Amino acid sequence: MVTQSGKPAPDTTRRSERSRRAIYDAALALVAETGYAKTTIEGIAARAGVGKQTIYRWWGSKADVLLEAFLDLSEQAARDAGATEQEPYVIPDTGDLAADIKAVLRATVDQLTDPRFEAPSRALAAEGLVNEQVSREFTAKLMEPSIQLYVDRLRAAQEAGQVRADLDPRIALEFFISPLAQRWLQHTGPISYEYTDTLVDYALHGLAPR
Amino acid sequence: MVTQSGKPAPDTTRRSERSRRAIYDAALALVAETGYAKTTIEGIAARAGVGKQTIYRWWGSKADVLLEAFLDLSEQAARDAGATEQEPYVIPDTGDLAADIKAVLRATVDQLTDPRFEAPSRALAAEGLVNEQVSREFTAKLMEPSIQLYVDRLRAAQEAGQVRADLDPRIALEFFISPLAQRWLQHTGPISYEYTDTLVDYALHGLAPR
Repeated sequence: MVTQSGKPAPDTTRRSERSRRAIYDAALALVAETGYAKTTIEGIAARAGVGKQTIYRWWGSKADVLLEAFLDLSEQAARDAGATEQEPYVIPDTGDLAADIKAVLRATVDQLTDPRFEAPSRALAAEGLVNEQVSREFTAKLMEPSIQLYVDRLRAAQEAGQVRADLDPRIALEFFISPLAQRWLQHTGPISYEYTDTLVDYALHGLAPR
Repeated sequence: MVTQSGKPAPDTTRRSERSRRAIYDAALALVAETGYAKTTIEGIAARAGVGKQTIYRWWGSKADVLLEAFLDLSEQAARDAGATEQEPYVIPDTGDLAADIKAVLRATVDQLTDPRFEAPSRALAAEGLVNEQVSREFTAKLMEPSIQLYVDRLRAAQEAGQVRADLDPRIALEFFISPLAQRWLQHTGPISYEYTDTLVDYALHGLAPR
């Protein structure tokens, strides 16, 4: 088949990929505009210009579509930050823990203030506050993998003698991510590179005099 | 006027106080059940058994009613924790910073897991995520006063030489409150006294070896 412009029609794989991308974009736009509760499979299909059955063929529920749309958005952000399929995103280990965590937090600041990411993320987090099932699923699939990267980096720092061996890395990492998350979620303070750099210095050296 | 039981009728002040209490209870129950967006002055009035005009006489908007209902709830929690009108709630200063902060955080754990508090607070926080004006107003009026108590306690600790003098208390306090807030908001981990005690120890002594 040849289109009116004379170019060959895209093959099925490329058509599928284009539909998938349209569905992700529609799902993220709708959840940002109307919230999680009012976003429907029908609405996503209409906005993406595909049949409802196309969505049901690939995903079982609205939560599944949104989960994959967010995972895709996070992967885009990771690629923007330099990750590749050959070298997936990890927290760098240059031997300088403070510098490595600061670099990751600066990238997180960029992501949290990126409008593509901010509106749908806020809508999803808002639903999670009042819908524990959504919260637990999205936390497990979207946040836990990132949290595990911090655990791994802190374990390496413990082995290198840069973090106390008796600390639980799963708690320690919260000094890096939770203050930033709360400022973003609850508007309790401004977000900047200087702020996240400060968090890293305070966390590593402690509040009490040495 | 004498009621059928023979007791004198409550005077206007007591009637007003009873209406005010019914309005607060109705407002908190409705926001917990239906969310901020669907809570209306009409709904609050109907549930409280008062006329709409009674609410409009005392408050200018739905946000105002809810703000005062939350302030009242927080004051109740403070009274439960031992505050009185003569001695309003502050973070104790026994000279032992770690013990003082641990005591306050244990009380916060109790509050965050109290059903009277949890459901309306989650509903309000969810609205704040997608409605920056609500978030900023409630943060300023509900959260900032508590945050200021931490700033004051950390300043006293700086003067006593227990916290490094070069730290910004407004950032340092986030190691105490933000990890707990994130676990509560996003279900990223369990909340317990042992957990908040650990946060205080890690924050004061730092993650790096001494």
